[in-house]
Amino acid sequence: MSSVNEAQRGRFIVFEGGDGSGKSTQAKLLADALGAELTREPGGTPISEKIRSLVLDPAHAELDARTEALLMAASRAQHVAELIKPTLTRGVSVVSDRFVASSLAYQGVARSLGIDAVAQANALALDGLKPDLTILLKVSAEAARGRLGDELDRIEQASLDDVVVSTYERFAADDPDGWLVIEAEGSVNEIGARVRSGVRERLGL
Amino acid sequence: MSSVNEAQRGRFIVFEGGDGSGKSTQAKLLADALGAELTREPGGTPISEKIRSLVLDPAHAELDARTEALLMAASRAQHVAELIKPTLTRGVSVVSDRFVASSLAYQGVARSLGIDAVAQANALALDGLKPDLTILLKVSAEAARGRLGDELDRIEQASLDDVVVSTYERFAADDPDGWLVIEAEGSVNEIGARVRSGVRERLGL
Repeated sequence: MSSVNEAQRGRFIVFEGGDGSGKSTQAKLLADALGAELTREPGGTPISEKIRSLVLDPAHAELDARTEALLMAASRAQHVAELIKPTLTRGVSVVSDRFVASSLAYQGVARSLGIDAVAQANALALDGLKPDLTILLKVSAEAARGRLGDELDRIEQASLDDVVVSTYERFAADDPDGWLVIEAEGSVNEIGARVRSGVRERLGL
Repeated sequence: MSSVNEAQRGRFIVFEGGDGSGKSTQAKLLADALGAELTREPGGTPISEKIRSLVLDPAHAELDARTEALLMAASRAQHVAELIKPTLTRGVSVVSDRFVASSLAYQGVARSLGIDAVAQANALALDGLKPDLTILLKVSAEAARGRLGDELDRIEQASLDDVVVSTYERFAADDPDGWLVIEAEGSVNEIGARVRSGVRERLGL
């Protein structure tokens, strides 16, 4: 039905990385530079935000890991159908702070549901959509630990983060055309320049 | 970890059928007769009920069919993990008014997402659980139509219902050991006696 041909379609760029890797800041910088729509997961549409608040509600201590993974996939389905695909079809690029790789790493690996099982559930959500480029912001383990205090929950969080980040690194190694690994050390502007140059080289944007 | 062996495990029995086929009434009758736990979908746990109300909220006119299917699967994941599996493990049988076949028929066929795509998403929710028996309450198309008025939305509902019911009939034909088709014509007690006798024959209960 669309009269927009493939050459006019926008590009879909995703940022992934551990907590505190600077994803949100760099996603905003890149979206501004490209005139792209900036969005984030979980969230991105009113329904997705409602699903997100259901997941984060502390009253739901009994929320099963499988329920959580499927709620994340449901939120993503709405994000794809209502915001990402229509924006790309209008010829506008989209930059998202996190996407499906976050679910594969957090629910698939860190929560032990299995990458394949989580990927199968997400296939319905994606409706064939694949990022044109996923940018992994990589911070050294020392730098990441240096930002953390010694409270137990933060240490546990850090070790979860290690598992997630090493999963992203594996995805990047398995799909070097789809992923771009950026060393996220230095000032915001230095990292931003590396991102901008990598996106120009990979996507011609 | 469980000390309950397979012989002591409860049985999981599901009722499916078109609207007005008498599922809820017959599910309650059978659960009472067997001393089984009665439940229903969508719903069955507090979180599942919250997800259900999110799906049914008329403010969500823009809810995508894929989002709806994944929310139904999320609701089912919680139902399985929090209620159905623990009850079966305690040695108590469970009777559910609807289960995964409803999603395969409504979202997979009637909403055209495809049975395989919806089944893949539900695999994460089921965590290996399969009903011991699914009972299809079959009403003739004439009888079903006879219960409906001539308002347009009810006629559309009836034609949707035809698609759903013929999908259940296909499932029953493809898996005659897993399904039991009951002619749902006659009084509640007559139909109840057919159900009770079929369950005794099939499951020895």
